Amino acid sequence: MISVAILGNGNVATHLYSAFSKAEKITVSKIDSRKLDNIPTSDVTIIAVSDDAIAEVSSKIENTLVVHTSGSVAMNSLENKGRKGVFYPLQSFSKDRKANFKKVPFCLETENQSDLNLLESLAKSIGKKIFYINSDQRKRLHVSAVFVNNFVNHLYKIGEDICEEHQVPFEILQPLIQETAKKIKKLSPKEAQTGPAKRNDQETIKNHLDLLNSEQQEIYKLFTKSILNGN
Amino acid sequence: MISVAILGNGNVATHLYSAFSKAEKITVSKIDSRKLDNIPTSDVTIIAVSDDAIAEVSSKIENTLVVHTSGSVAMNSLENKGRKGVFYPLQSFSKDRKANFKKVPFCLETENQSDLNLLESLAKSIGKKIFYINSDQRKRLHVSAVFVNNFVNHLYKIGEDICEEHQVPFEILQPLIQETAKKIKKLSPKEAQTGPAKRNDQETIKNHLDLLNSEQQEIYKLFTKSILNGN
Repeated sequence: MISVAILGNGNVATHLYSAFSKAEKITVSKIDSRKLDNIPTSDVTIIAVSDDAIAEVSSKIENTLVVHTSGSVAMNSLENKGRKGVFYPLQSFSKDRKANFKKVPFCLETENQSDLNLLESLAKSIGKKIFYINSDQRKRLHVSAVFVNNFVNHLYKIGEDICEEHQVPFEILQPLIQETAKKIKKLSPKEAQTGPAKRNDQETIKNHLDLLNSEQQEIYKLFTKSILNGN
Repeated sequence: MISVAILGNGNVATHLYSAFSKAEKITVSKIDSRKLDNIPTSDVTIIAVSDDAIAEVSSKIENTLVVHTSGSVAMNSLENKGRKGVFYPLQSFSKDRKANFKKVPFCLETENQSDLNLLESLAKSIGKKIFYINSDQRKRLHVSAVFVNNFVNHLYKIGEDICEEHQVPFEILQPLIQETAKKIKKLSPKEAQTGPAKRNDQETIKNHLDLLNSEQQEIYKLFTKSILNGN
């Protein structure tokens, strides 16, 4: 058995708690991160709070192995006196969408091999994709995630804005959006690229720019330049 | 029966020909767009050639209804003497990926209602998502498609570049990429947005910028500004 205490009130804490509750050989308790005086003794204490609260919360924990779940905070930012680690499930969790941990990559980091084994067992109790990622790599991964998640979503929003402004149903673009994401399961993004920028089709580029507002133009020009440069 | 002649040698011509060949109540022939002297008499002639060849190719066709398949060319750019139309399947077609026309939106435009009925029958023989989109709307749709397909793919490429530079496997980001695309089947992109820009988390934004090269920084700053502005 591995005993786990999860501290936090957000989506990550909730989804992890729910998954561990159903896992074999795991006992789990969930603690409100505003009431830290009663943390049960546990093999692993998972701090799933906002990045800027991790240091303070960790400083109050006396359990031996304390891990956080953040993509952008270094392991050494933990201020507990015992052993430290990171248990970062890389996915965008929503309150209303079920989390399928079988598909979620777990990025693990610890100070020693036996803690890594422990976190690996814990991750395997609910998932199956395990990666060993150090704090520097994790920072890079987190910034990459901003590009492929937040910024991609913002491009969806611009697409929707252009459609709505001209009474075109955004649903027409949904199959293309899904296909674009599926394509890179098989092809690298560089191989998958098509379109006017890739072809250096200056006439289409000019026609497109004429249809856009100034902020959209700025984004269009920057991407066209970057794709043309092969960057 | 509807008889169809497809002119062209590219992916759209090939995939349409293959789909129509299997459709009921359709007879189809495919013509090399460099050999236009032998076009069979057909109810619909589909010109699936590059945008800048559409006008010239169409001027040589004597069949009655001539349509092109382009997202960015106006219907009136066709130079045949008979009736004109557009039969635009909005999807990114690859040589190596099977096209599932059941999921592809067909954007149709004609000069009169009876031709629209004809194109609708044709589209329904291989697909089921039919939209009536005029030339102006289609131009907007095409520029939106560049944002949600080519530019999104470019963000995937940047994510991959950052990962590769630091020996992080890009596959760690695949589930997040797929989830980001799936999310907007249910939520609008505006509702789905998360991340440091949305939260105006200046410390994370600053840390991220420190990790990027100058072109990546330029894109990061522009998106952060645009998300913060709610644009």
